[in-house]
Amino acid sequence: MSKYWSRTVKNITPYTPGEQPKDRKYIKLNTNENPYPPSPRVIEAIKHAADETLRLYPDPLGEELRETIADYCHLAKDNVFIGNGSDELLAFSFLAFFEPAGRPLLFADITYSFYPVYAAFFKTNYRLIPVDEEFDVPVAGYTQDNGGIIIANPNAPTGKGMPAEAIEAILRQNENSVVILDEAYVDFGGQSAIRFINNYPNLLIIRTLSKSHSLAGLRVGYALGHPELIAAIIRVKDSINSYTVDRLALAGAREAIKDISYFQETRSRIMQTRERVSTRLTEMSFKVIPSLANFIFITTAQCPASILFQRLREKGILVRYFNKPKIDNYLRVTIGTDAEMDAFLETIKDAAGL
Amino acid sequence: MSKYWSRTVKNITPYTPGEQPKDRKYIKLNTNENPYPPSPRVIEAIKHAADETLRLYPDPLGEELRETIADYCHLAKDNVFIGNGSDELLAFSFLAFFEPAGRPLLFADITYSFYPVYAAFFKTNYRLIPVDEEFDVPVAGYTQDNGGIIIANPNAPTGKGMPAEAIEAILRQNENSVVILDEAYVDFGGQSAIRFINNYPNLLIIRTLSKSHSLAGLRVGYALGHPELIAAIIRVKDSINSYTVDRLALAGAREAIKDISYFQETRSRIMQTRERVSTRLTEMSFKVIPSLANFIFITTAQCPASILFQRLREKGILVRYFNKPKIDNYLRVTIGTDAEMDAFLETIKDAAGL
Repeated sequence: MSKYWSRTVKNITPYTPGEQPKDRKYIKLNTNENPYPPSPRVIEAIKHAADETLRLYPDPLGEELRETIADYCHLAKDNVFIGNGSDELLAFSFLAFFEPAGRPLLFADITYSFYPVYAAFFKTNYRLIPVDEEFDVPVAGYTQDNGGIIIANPNAPTGKGMPAEAIEAILRQNENSVVILDEAYVDFGGQSAIRFINNYPNLLIIRTLSKSHSLAGLRVGYALGHPELIAAIIRVKDSINSYTVDRLALAGAREAIKDISYFQETRSRIMQTRERVSTRLTEMSFKVIPSLANFIFITTAQCPASILFQRLREKGILVRYFNKPKIDNYLRVTIGTDAEMDAFLETIKDAAGL
Repeated sequence: MSKYWSRTVKNITPYTPGEQPKDRKYIKLNTNENPYPPSPRVIEAIKHAADETLRLYPDPLGEELRETIADYCHLAKDNVFIGNGSDELLAFSFLAFFEPAGRPLLFADITYSFYPVYAAFFKTNYRLIPVDEEFDVPVAGYTQDNGGIIIANPNAPTGKGMPAEAIEAILRQNENSVVILDEAYVDFGGQSAIRFINNYPNLLIIRTLSKSHSLAGLRVGYALGHPELIAAIIRVKDSINSYTVDRLALAGAREAIKDISYFQETRSRIMQTRERVSTRLTEMSFKVIPSLANFIFITTAQCPASILFQRLREKGILVRYFNKPKIDNYLRVTIGTDAEMDAFLETIKDAAGL
């Protein structure tokens, strides 16, 4: 710690991203990346965009990509904002919609672990809604007084989804608060809240191309909401960094959205693998939380998760372990290819002594 | 304005980036882009990186690029931080080093117009150091009590440089404050403060590949400083967005830094063109502020700058005009290719009635 650090930086505990090993020897099931490559059309578009125009700034709002996403979501262009991954969109939204030291933001006690980091960093008060023993979040938790709500749907790291009716009830009961739905994983079987955008001016949906479009390395996410909410995020961007998404990312992301058949095929494959692996793990006596995401959350009475995590690592398989109350006996396992998951199943069976 | 906006967003006047016209009909001398394409090695590296690994997150710190830049600057890897353009680095630095509502940050009254936007957005008090009639910033201005200092060297939009001895005096006199040197334009003839990094733990240098490396469209900048300062910026990044620079940008930036001969050739060409154009404009009775950047700042008694700006625009030439005290009779003109500048010279001669 240095005398030059601001109080905020001294006091913060930053987010810890999942391990990104330099070598390729691991089967990497720890950061919810897609095991399939991006669409060949994405690669082509990037190669085509890699030309002398890189000397020029990108379009600061990514208007062409905004239009592509608006078409894809059956919304208007001014319902869409393009950002450098969904984390940037979340950070900008904290600044745009949540008052420092104001009424508490509500989110689940078990959810994406970046939310409390943002809250601490931007000095947003918050109150945690406890999940129940099946990791469901009671809708009644969102009826208390608040200055905003964030819900990951499906939730991380559990994979649990919330039905659209529950989401609508929360939107209706909180018309004075911005309700952020983090739909990073929605393409793997969840119910999107897109249908509510035109009726609820308090709804902001945040999505990413990192998971279902196999583009974690390209850094593109988008927010959907009422034009007034989108305008606020634009004001934040133009107070921090006018150009956060580069020309290559804009070009690649457009093709990713447009290649719908590739998207459908790869996400179906992941959902099929998830169901097969979940069944097999259940047969092996694991408890598998029913998942609507591209990962599963598992535990077994046979062996503590922390030990399983280490044993898997030693055998070359990376998964995610959170040393945190309520979930410290669970592992989050990203769904890989069928071959990777077969290796995982064999290894974990052995590691758990089953 | 919406009831959902935070007070910060309601009160802010965001930065206005220079116009990015959609069509190509303009000679674009308004946003200080490089008129020459990036090195062919950059294009090759990007095409090579556009592969199936885009499904994986990038290295969160860009370690390989950090090493390349450290070598290039004769510093250690932990002296280097990679960011999404220098604007992001500036925003992160405000959060890392300047206390909200604390002792005032010092910067010139005529300088990069994003600084007061950051200060307002992050609630940093600030005091302006008035430039003199030749747009020089008196070193004595930086001796007053402060909570931090930012100096663009060379300065924008004037192109005026500050000698290394003046910088060192400021560093020595402000050992309790972080002094940020924004060296976005330093490669066009300015004196870098890199030589002071190892002796002054209060120095942070911010640079970009947007200008001298022809990569405005790729979004890469870097910060240089004592490892404790770099550690603070990493903490800010990991409280906002763990991965701000994508795989393609990391790959392209490395080659841009490594292709030193291409960099030397293009920047020399720009400096030569700048000198030729400055001489010619002076002959035409323009006052040209001596520039160490890839732009010139000019005025003439013959015609108000606001009118010249409009006339140039009508003739298909975009330059930048700032409607602001002290500089509202000046134009900032980016140095383009020789052909572009010949067209500019002819057009402005006509537009000014010379």
